[in-house]
Amino acid sequence: MSQLSPTVELAKELIQQPSITPNDANCQEIMIMRLATLGFTVERLRFEDVDNVWLRLGEKGPVLAFAGHTDVVPTGPESSWQYPPFEPTITDGILYGRGAADMKGSLAAMITACERFLAETPDLEEHGSIAFLITSDEEGPAKNGTVKVVEHLQARGEHIDWCIVGEPSSTEFVGDVIKNGRRGSLGAILTVNGVQGHVAYPHLVKNPIHLAAPALAELAAHEWDQGNEYFPPTSFQISNISAGTGATNVVPGELSVQFNFRFSTESTAESLQQRVEYIFKQHQLDFHIEWSLFGLPFLTDHGHLLPATVSAVEEVTGYKPTVSTAGGTSDGRFIAPTGTEVIELGPSNATIHKINECVKVADLDLLSAMYEKILSKLFTK
Amino acid sequence: MSQLSPTVELAKELIQQPSITPNDANCQEIMIMRLATLGFTVERLRFEDVDNVWLRLGEKGPVLAFAGHTDVVPTGPESSWQYPPFEPTITDGILYGRGAADMKGSLAAMITACERFLAETPDLEEHGSIAFLITSDEEGPAKNGTVKVVEHLQARGEHIDWCIVGEPSSTEFVGDVIKNGRRGSLGAILTVNGVQGHVAYPHLVKNPIHLAAPALAELAAHEWDQGNEYFPPTSFQISNISAGTGATNVVPGELSVQFNFRFSTESTAESLQQRVEYIFKQHQLDFHIEWSLFGLPFLTDHGHLLPATVSAVEEVTGYKPTVSTAGGTSDGRFIAPTGTEVIELGPSNATIHKINECVKVADLDLLSAMYEKILSKLFTK
Ligand SMILES: [Zn+2]
Ligand SMILES: [Zn+2]
Repeated sequence: MSQLSPTVELAKELIQQPSITPNDANCQEIMIMRLATLGFTVERLRFEDVDNVWLRLGEKGPVLAFAGHTDVVPTGPESSWQYPPFEPTITDGILYGRGAADMKGSLAAMITACERFLAETPDLEEHGSIAFLITSDEEGPAKNGTVKVVEHLQARGEHIDWCIVGEPSSTEFVGDVIKNGRRGSLGAILTVNGVQGHVAYPHLVKNPIHLAAPALAELAAHEWDQGNEYFPPTSFQISNISAGTGATNVVPGELSVQFNFRFSTESTAESLQQRVEYIFKQHQLDFHIEWSLFGLPFLTDHGHLLPATVSAVEEVTGYKPTVSTAGGTSDGRFIAPTGTEVIELGPSNATIHKINECVKVADLDLLSAMYEKILSKLFTK
Repeated sequence: MSQLSPTVELAKELIQQPSITPNDANCQEIMIMRLATLGFTVERLRFEDVDNVWLRLGEKGPVLAFAGHTDVVPTGPESSWQYPPFEPTITDGILYGRGAADMKGSLAAMITACERFLAETPDLEEHGSIAFLITSDEEGPAKNGTVKVVEHLQARGEHIDWCIVGEPSSTEFVGDVIKNGRRGSLGAILTVNGVQGHVAYPHLVKNPIHLAAPALAELAAHEWDQGNEYFPPTSFQISNISAGTGATNVVPGELSVQFNFRFSTESTAESLQQRVEYIFKQHQLDFHIEWSLFGLPFLTDHGHLLPATVSAVEEVTGYKPTVSTAGGTSDGRFIAPTGTEVIELGPSNATIHKINECVKVADLDLLSAMYEKILSKLFTK
């Protein structure tokens, strides 16, 4: 067996820790040990049951922070895995294990990138600072992680200028897609009230399913906006619907519906809420909605970080990456509102959250090279 | 305390047996004892876990059968009852207890009606026969009860000419409504297939809720028929709907819907099925339906039983009863198809299947008088 690179060795060590969200399972201490050796100061920030850490090298700006998470999603049935999910295994150039792609590989790639970059740039602190913002609840409720660390930094006036989120942004090969923003996410729990009764007495019931169906059909067909240069059109999806006692002869008194918007910068949370409620009122529904704003849309289309990342990827792979705002939310939504330029760059997302999650060994080394080039472009022009 | 009538005494004795469906809890033996004394022959017919009994007095036709059930629906939380549900209690002229109205009161009323009628008509057997068809699973799946007894009688060529079903047909006062038929009942379990996925990737999903909503709206608004002189229009009700994993960010792959038709003689089960499937096909749904025909509509608008019942009620109460086909199904649906005239006459249905089920003591005596008059009109002109 050939020698493994330091990036792959470190990725394996991290995968070995069974850090199912929100349990960090010692991953952060492994990272801290490596980064403290490089001179990073360490600030452990535990909020309720969530371990977070803020590491920083340098005192002046600009500050480039790498944002990532040590927690992983549950494995599902371990017997379905080709190799045990917390025993990192390499076969035919592929590294298997829970978190290999999301996102322990990225954590390892950035740490080794810093090690190489700082070895060649002993005077970094004259040009700026490098930081790590690491949480262990990105895959969980995301309440005691990045959002709390950002509040903590803001409270003392500590600003992040540039942020690389290590989420698996790529699709076919590493670096083919960079995310420079994310759509907003707005959720709702709708309750439609009717009058329960027996199916045999239709004049005594008000069937909330019948009353809501035309309104739901209208919402599903509605065009909310057309998107723009950076964002696809806002999309509406009903994720859950339920009504009924289980009995076949009872008309239920209540219908419950959950839906979600992923919205572009062409719509606002308020405008979507107003339009939905207008449609329900037009259909004369007796309804109640609870709205949850999970994240506002953000976009990084200016500044230094995006061009540095694009050309770093191009130099390493030979291909120009696609810049996209598609996909789910990430912790970038908590960092961007502070005025930070945020991009996301990580390995392929093809196997994340699945059985047999894996990453190409070579991709981790390429990713580490990309991260190193970004550092060098930002701090040594 | 004043003396209770034999009808009320017997009703109390039956209510005391906790005969939650399909458990007969000795009720049928109590009835058998009374009727055997009158000379009825007894044929116990147990099918699987369900006790049934066929009792008959007389060998020639015409045969009048009283159809009823000894089982009751569950009580719900007993602590919510004003009096324990299986301890029949009379207060202010009201008899409380599970089954008081549905339908132990009717069973008692018919037995005492026979006792009085036969005491005055020792030659009944020259005019015809009286029978009881009693089951203990009317409130349950209704698979091993009346339907099986009817099959058994048909197999040996035993015919019922007239049938009084003792279900609580009345609304405000006893005898205000007689049922002379019932709508058909057709149920369906619909599955609509889509493609599951993450809400953030709307182009990769096919949301079965979105696809089905316009079709369900169309079904809810559709006029199936206009009913006729005897039947209200056919009604369609969705009783249950469900889709979704519970997660707010996942579009489900499948929608499940249960619905039910109560249909008049203007529609057939086949015509309803065809129209529903046509609508789903028009909406290009990928769907599967499982149909269950619970009962065909039936109607008794000719013969001797209906006029005898109408005038019996009129003579006892002084009011002309409303003749109706409204309401749920009853075991009459199993008896009518054999060519039997079927009517339903029982106490008020205001409290059936509810906490504090009750019946007016005086109504049981009136009901017994009505049953007696029907016997006398049919057998002693
Ligand atoms: Zn992740
Ligand atoms: Zn009943």
